[in-house]
Amino acid sequence: MSTPAIPHIGRLRAGPRNAISDVAGVTVGHCTLDQGPIQTGVTVIRPHMADPFLVKSRAASTVLNGFGKSIGLMQIAELGLLETPIALTNTFAVGAIAQAQIASACRSNPQIGRDTHTVNPLVLECNDGWLNDIQAMAVGAEHYDAALAAASAEFAQGSVGAGRGMSMFGVKGGIGSASREVVIAGQCYTLGALVLTNYGRAPSLVVDGRRVGAELHRRLATPALPESGSIIIVLATDAPLDDRQLRRVSLRAGAGLARTGSVFGHGSGDIVLAFSTAYPVPHDPDRPMPACVMLHDRRIDPLFQAAADATEQAIVHALLRAQAVKGFRAQERAGFTDILADWQLVPQER
Amino acid sequence: MSTPAIPHIGRLRAGPRNAISDVAGVTVGHCTLDQGPIQTGVTVIRPHMADPFLVKSRAASTVLNGFGKSIGLMQIAELGLLETPIALTNTFAVGAIAQAQIASACRSNPQIGRDTHTVNPLVLECNDGWLNDIQAMAVGAEHYDAALAAASAEFAQGSVGAGRGMSMFGVKGGIGSASREVVIAGQCYTLGALVLTNYGRAPSLVVDGRRVGAELHRRLATPALPESGSIIIVLATDAPLDDRQLRRVSLRAGAGLARTGSVFGHGSGDIVLAFSTAYPVPHDPDRPMPACVMLHDRRIDPLFQAAADATEQAIVHALLRAQAVKGFRAQERAGFTDILADWQLVPQER
Amino acid sequence: MSTPAIPHIGRLRAGPRNAISDVAGVTVGHCTLDQGPIQTGVTVIRPHMADPFLVKSRAASTVLNGFGKSIGLMQIAELGLLETPIALTNTFAVGAIAQAQIASACRSNPQIGRDTHTVNPLVLECNDGWLNDIQAMAVGAEHYDAALAAASAEFAQGSVGAGRGMSMFGVKGGIGSASREVVIAGQCYTLGALVLTNYGRAPSLVVDGRRVGAELHRRLATPALPESGSIIIVLATDAPLDDRQLRRVSLRAGAGLARTGSVFGHGSGDIVLAFSTAYPVPHDPDRPMPACVMLHDRRIDPLFQAAADATEQAIVHALLRAQAVKGFRAQERAGFTDILADWQLVPQER
Amino acid sequence: MSTPAIPHIGRLRAGPRNAISDVAGVTVGHCTLDQGPIQTGVTVIRPHMADPFLVKSRAASTVLNGFGKSIGLMQIAELGLLETPIALTNTFAVGAIAQAQIASACRSNPQIGRDTHTVNPLVLECNDGWLNDIQAMAVGAEHYDAALAAASAEFAQGSVGAGRGMSMFGVKGGIGSASREVVIAGQCYTLGALVLTNYGRAPSLVVDGRRVGAELHRRLATPALPESGSIIIVLATDAPLDDRQLRRVSLRAGAGLARTGSVFGHGSGDIVLAFSTAYPVPHDPDRPMPACVMLHDRRIDPLFQAAADATEQAIVHALLRAQAVKGFRAQERAGFTDILADWQLVPQER
Repeated sequence: MSTPAIPHIGRLRAGPRNAISDVAGVTVGHCTLDQGPIQTGVTVIRPHMADPFLVKSRAASTVLNGFGKSIGLMQIAELGLLETPIALTNTFAVGAIAQAQIASACRSNPQIGRDTHTVNPLVLECNDGWLNDIQAMAVGAEHYDAALAAASAEFAQGSVGAGRGMSMFGVKGGIGSASREVVIAGQCYTLGALVLTNYGRAPSLVVDGRRVGAELHRRLATPALPESGSIIIVLATDAPLDDRQLRRVSLRAGAGLARTGSVFGHGSGDIVLAFSTAYPVPHDPDRPMPACVMLHDRRIDPLFQAAADATEQAIVHALLRAQAVKGFRAQERAGFTDILADWQLVPQER
Repeated sequence: MSTPAIPHIGRLRAGPRNAISDVAGVTVGHCTLDQGPIQTGVTVIRPHMADPFLVKSRAASTVLNGFGKSIGLMQIAELGLLETPIALTNTFAVGAIAQAQIASACRSNPQIGRDTHTVNPLVLECNDGWLNDIQAMAVGAEHYDAALAAASAEFAQGSVGAGRGMSMFGVKGGIGSASREVVIAGQCYTLGALVLTNYGRAPSLVVDGRRVGAELHRRLATPALPESGSIIIVLATDAPLDDRQLRRVSLRAGAGLARTGSVFGHGSGDIVLAFSTAYPVPHDPDRPMPACVMLHDRRIDPLFQAAADATEQAIVHALLRAQAVKGFRAQERAGFTDILADWQLVPQER
Repeated sequence: MSTPAIPHIGRLRAGPRNAISDVAGVTVGHCTLDQGPIQTGVTVIRPHMADPFLVKSRAASTVLNGFGKSIGLMQIAELGLLETPIALTNTFAVGAIAQAQIASACRSNPQIGRDTHTVNPLVLECNDGWLNDIQAMAVGAEHYDAALAAASAEFAQGSVGAGRGMSMFGVKGGIGSASREVVIAGQCYTLGALVLTNYGRAPSLVVDGRRVGAELHRRLATPALPESGSIIIVLATDAPLDDRQLRRVSLRAGAGLARTGSVFGHGSGDIVLAFSTAYPVPHDPDRPMPACVMLHDRRIDPLFQAAADATEQAIVHALLRAQAVKGFRAQERAGFTDILADWQLVPQER
Repeated sequence: MSTPAIPHIGRLRAGPRNAISDVAGVTVGHCTLDQGPIQTGVTVIRPHMADPFLVKSRAASTVLNGFGKSIGLMQIAELGLLETPIALTNTFAVGAIAQAQIASACRSNPQIGRDTHTVNPLVLECNDGWLNDIQAMAVGAEHYDAALAAASAEFAQGSVGAGRGMSMFGVKGGIGSASREVVIAGQCYTLGALVLTNYGRAPSLVVDGRRVGAELHRRLATPALPESGSIIIVLATDAPLDDRQLRRVSLRAGAGLARTGSVFGHGSGDIVLAFSTAYPVPHDPDRPMPACVMLHDRRIDPLFQAAADATEQAIVHALLRAQAVKGFRAQERAGFTDILADWQLVPQER
């Protein structure tokens, strides 16, 4: 899956997989739909292997640009907790996947909505309408269930799952992931990122500090993607952070995103969700609350750096790993390396 | 449906219908599901009679308590615009109704998600799981379409539409609406409210300043509703307000809500959405933007008062107009006046 | 200072002093300036008896209406920590008191701003320009120091300290305080409120559910206070809440405020600050972070009720305890009971 | 003032001065204190030449990291209006300058705080405690008045005004400014930036895409600046934007900041304030409100790009123009070009 030409972003060390699943317990599954004009899918991130409704993870989000149709962020802002797996899909499948998440949670916990609170689905999206017949609404509950069942620490990147139909900088986008390790007060923590990339205008592309966008734009024959992109960034960490600290960390993903040439365009839903696997909170208030020793905020800077670097690295992975796809209306996107295999030799320019 | 005993809240004058449809162009439609254990429905508010995607209304929201599963508020916060009708339904039907809104918008505008931006569905919800078999997921696109088609300036209140299965203060809740007129610098403006009420513990109920909750609690045989309620408050006005001003107005609905005995409980999704019919914004940026003469903020106080008063009045309407319903597991809720017809004679107490 | 006629708001029990200092360790001091046209002052709330810079308290705020000139809330939003005493004063003295807080913190910690971070002053204000010659800028560092030195669990209410020149509902306002006790999972917690009241139009006044505003307005000879009021509400608790939970609690003060007749008017800076004395955070990250057992959010409702009730009670205390003051331009405000001693006999009306 | 070696950031054209004063009517003045251990000052940005209290400018802010002690942003968030000049100074001078702003406004409008609303001072700050004896509190009202009186479209950059004592990336920081022009629907608009730079760790520095930080860090003999930096970014534009749109634009300054190597460190108060000179709002509500034709949001992307580019350019200007300063405790900061005159020849590295 990896290629020798992939640069390492920044100075922090990557985890063994250089993927979000380097955070212990985090797994990822895809369900990919590849049927002519239907080029779309679902990607699911499980925060841990237990029931996420019964064992809730601390979480927070940053909305860099709110041109998006996600569901679930409002309750996370209020309660600071994640209680389902995180689902990524196309814009018009949010409703269907939210229903699938509710059904899945109710199967495990039949009291939901009756004898206890309802469950908060969490679905984030990008618009794959260039390669995928989005109005066909091809994604359904079975695809969510399949992605969930497939969740593993080992998972594919590129034109898979929710990334199947996505575009970035005029070429193919999709799923990318990366991780970074930091040492704080003698303790090693891992921060992982997973991105769903569907943003960026070709001329603006910067890869590992190299301004390759002008040359990319020159070589591309296909029309430039309209500005209505989006990027979803999911950050996971085992560092002991509460929701306020996770919100601080999540904002720093924007620094990594900016370094790739984005200015968080008007039509781009640029959303970051961060969660911690440390100190989960039980659904049942009669269970004892964990005694938490949170990180002191004055120790948080390495995690800020890790969030920016892992995000940029995950974006680079999506760019370099996404294979060409042809889909709706016979429209297609080439892979970045199909167009610019020699990107590391392209001279710096504006 | 109305009764002579309904008090008038505050000193401002109501519009001719004392309903949200007193704001010119605003209409409301219901689709009610009343089939044994299925006691639920959909309510739709159309901001005007044109295509809401092509002619967007300025809007903003306040989340008093974010324990809720709505979809659509993030984009409204970013762009300050409403581009679909506002749909209200039960918690587990949000996804289905979002899909229905997308499908409806695509039928009118086939370029959506392909040649222009996607559309932002807006669905707000409360949990009717006491009276309705919410896990049956009985609500579908056809119910949205029916509610939309039924939209009219004249509409029912009480145990109808999305309000069919809702409970408040231990008795039946549902849909209520009201309006107020204000004169600012010689100009008359109307502000209307529509509420979906599913909140409140019986002992806390205050009606028009009268603390009737203790007596209500005494007379009720059914167990108290668990705290997991919610209230959705929609405000419409023809006053020329931008989204910042609408956000300010929307917060004041919380004052009206507080006066009924609520402290915005932990498990209650208390959401306010406000929109203005003045100066809509075209989808197409090539169309001329309207030249707007907005209200000066120093003139806004009468609209703050109207928002609080219309909200409280709409809640009183829901309480007094909601008829008894029996549903899921043969559970039932009496109408408030079934229990406390003499509420205006109950002595003030704690 | 207290009178037998003071009603008890709500059903929760008050602490022994019915004041914010019922939260163990919290003390309050005033410095009052009463010199002809100068009718103003400073009130200081100490969160505990240790150095607040070295031992920081968890804190959060809600801005109900941001027409105000406070300093310090931005950093509290970012870090969730209070690191100075809370100072209340008049609008034009914020700068002077912020300087006094910095100087005071530097005297205790000479490394501030040089060898460690700077300190975040926290000053909240209302405009006492009707009774006080606010442009005289009479308040200085010595008044802050005097208020701080005077801090005690026993403190005066009414026309004292920062409350000296304040007005409410057309009569005299000032300082009020109250407390409530709640039992959660067998544990007793205290929540205290202190208010600086300078808001409200006479016709809107509601005291303990009694609409006495119309009668008050009728009897008042002085012109109605312009809308440019404000109220500062400070909440303290010993419950183990983090900053997110404190923000949730702080919003509920708005419910108490609404019940007195406020709709959070345009010109009113309505600010709530809440802090917890449980689990303070050391300035020095090398000191061990506390192992915290926070309250489960599903247990938080009694504290929401306490926040609303203690706020309303504190406002009633300010109203009933503030004595008449004459000041700038010989303008004066009568005490509420000077005008409406028989308020408990006034019939309900609009 | 300029040097031939200054690179041009991005592809947009700069205005004639490449400074914030390319936005018509905007002027800047400095007052610099250079007296041994006192190395500090005040910088003032006037939004236009009329009285800013009577003629208010639309404004909004983004707090990238709220570790800061500014005053005035809360009311701007509520009302979307700027009503004083924007003042920049050191952290411990905020109170003094706020008092100076109030006094200045009252001299022009004696009714302030008495017969009309109070005025909202706006002071933003960084901590210059390395070069300046910040505890000496040397800045006073006279320095604000001098900076205000000096305001001009031509103004110095580098180690002047509020920038006198600031540091960035281990070398001297200070004041930088830049501008960009964009054409939208045939209309030319200007966006200008002014920064006060006091942030960044040497190894992270990136200049115009060139990673020169490692080499800078190698050559620096002085200890690395502690993380407690900050950057203030002020954006001005003549584009017709309301406060929501200005908030969107202001966030994009963060993209420019990220491109210089920042991840918005914990101890850095990273604040952006944006204002528009189009369609000011009169203080007096009896004056007619302007009929506004605002920019359609779908046309806003060029201004997002301009905000990012002008911010990065202004930072580069501050870096390249700030001269060495020696101050408090004989501590000193070299100018960047003193250390790395050959920065454009330094090879790319991490």
